[in-house]
Amino acid sequence: MDVPSLFDRLPLVDHLDIEIDAAADGEATGHLDLRPYHSSRPDRMVAHGAVPYALADTVGGAAVLSTAGTVTPTVDMRLDYLAPATGERLEATASVVRVGSGVATVDVTVTDAEGDAVASGRAVYKTGGGEGETPWTDGTERERYRE
Amino acid sequence: MDVPSLFDRLPLVDHLDIEIDAAADGEATGHLDLRPYHSSRPDRMVAHGAVPYALADTVGGAAVLSTAGTVTPTVDMRLDYLAPATGERLEATASVVRVGSGVATVDVTVTDAEGDAVASGRAVYKTGGGEGETPWTDGTERERYRE
Amino acid sequence: MDVPSLFDRLPLVDHLDIEIDAAADGEATGHLDLRPYHSSRPDRMVAHGAVPYALADTVGGAAVLSTAGTVTPTVDMRLDYLAPATGERLEATASVVRVGSGVATVDVTVTDAEGDAVASGRAVYKTGGGEGETPWTDGTERERYRE
Amino acid sequence: MDVPSLFDRLPLVDHLDIEIDAAADGEATGHLDLRPYHSSRPDRMVAHGAVPYALADTVGGAAVLSTAGTVTPTVDMRLDYLAPATGERLEATASVVRVGSGVATVDVTVTDAEGDAVASGRAVYKTGGGEGETPWTDGTERERYRE
Repeated sequence: MDVPSLFDRLPLVDHLDIEIDAAADGEATGHLDLRPYHSSRPDRMVAHGAVPYALADTVGGAAVLSTAGTVTPTVDMRLDYLAPATGERLEATASVVRVGSGVATVDVTVTDAEGDAVASGRAVYKTGGGEGETPWTDGTERERYRE
Repeated sequence: MDVPSLFDRLPLVDHLDIEIDAAADGEATGHLDLRPYHSSRPDRMVAHGAVPYALADTVGGAAVLSTAGTVTPTVDMRLDYLAPATGERLEATASVVRVGSGVATVDVTVTDAEGDAVASGRAVYKTGGGEGETPWTDGTERERYRE
Repeated sequence: MDVPSLFDRLPLVDHLDIEIDAAADGEATGHLDLRPYHSSRPDRMVAHGAVPYALADTVGGAAVLSTAGTVTPTVDMRLDYLAPATGERLEATASVVRVGSGVATVDVTVTDAEGDAVASGRAVYKTGGGEGETPWTDGTERERYRE
Repeated sequence: MDVPSLFDRLPLVDHLDIEIDAAADGEATGHLDLRPYHSSRPDRMVAHGAVPYALADTVGGAAVLSTAGTVTPTVDMRLDYLAPATGERLEATASVVRVGSGVATVDVTVTDAEGDAVASGRAVYKTGGGEGETPWTDGTERERYRE
């Protein structure tokens, strides 16, 4: 199963309408169309801060998975907010800037449909042995998060 | 309107079933009951990293609002993940550790129903003039995020 | 006084042999030559993590000062370490990615003499009224950090 | 060699007059007496932001070493500044909040001599196999940072 298809199966990703568009060689892209439920205001669209975060964290995980062959949930993530998200769409690009035997460091940029930066993130993910399992594979995989 | 009631009106907060339980004097608490759509796995509950983040960011904002009288969206937030969230409920406590004329720094801890730490966050929020408006007040307020 | 000359007057900057090379329009560069006292090891050069941090924080502050006209000490900074610093020199480039009436967000990259990334930072600085004072101006300036 | 004695051998730690006072079971404490060269101002003492960072990073590493038996340089660290350091002394307390087979997460608080918080940090360190080597042991140890 390719990386975008794997992420289609994740409930929270579906609940927030996040889509992974591509993931290969430590780079990934994704997007979401802003809908009224994404807003932090009842009267108009200003996306809640957790919306670009959810997109950034998901696209970042896809980038790690595409190069390390496996990824466990995030160790830590920081997101800096650069402009309010008031438009119709958010897009994210993630790039693995360092990958080792134990952790991967990733940069993520979230933009609006015009390409203007909305948020900028940096995250560390724990990586595993690279045998091709994922946290989302059913059944036989080792549990890697509980250490 | 009191702080918990204000947050009830926020679409994303409702979409993720987040509830603010109390907010006063720079301290706030909130929770969410974990539902299948919060998971990052199709087969069982392991909450997606964006779920404790959404709870932490929302409770952190409530803490700032309770002491500064106003809050604009987050400047930046870092969340460290300490254990997978596999239970039935997440609870968060936020505490303002510094508030100035321009920014407030907040610590947030997210625990499961047994009180074990799931994630630990630190955020900076921009504060305004303290005239009592909020970003969620309709109509006449100044726009404070666009500077 | 221009920005690089201002930073020459700062005791800790001198104690670590940090030099600001240029600062204009929200961009700044600086460097330090690695000396035995910068190391975290008694037997050979592996720069202590505080060395690229000190360089990044100083160059970041210079970038803010060059565009906002004033800067108070850092609100927060995160540094991600990408490779050990074992060479002869560290160089840093800082870029202001957002500046508002209250805070500025800055990206900083630290490289070795070959241009390979050693560390990557993100910081928020508080800015003031822009009347041209600096935290390092003697005597008459307002104290802006104590709020 | 005990942990405080190990850290006495580190050149940058000596150059900034940092002392580790105790380290056991994932908790560590240390301090530095503020001297004119620590300042970010030529006219009076306001410690440069890199000073509490250097103390926090060093004490954090000591805390990890005391529980994991080994520590490699920091993966990432965030420091939030809560008050200017204008006194005579900085003290730091670090606590490991999570340790796994690959990484450890640490909280650090930096206070002045009166116990008031000056800065608050959170860091992730990579840990090794736990055989008791340290990055500062001469000669025969495996190189663990280059992966």
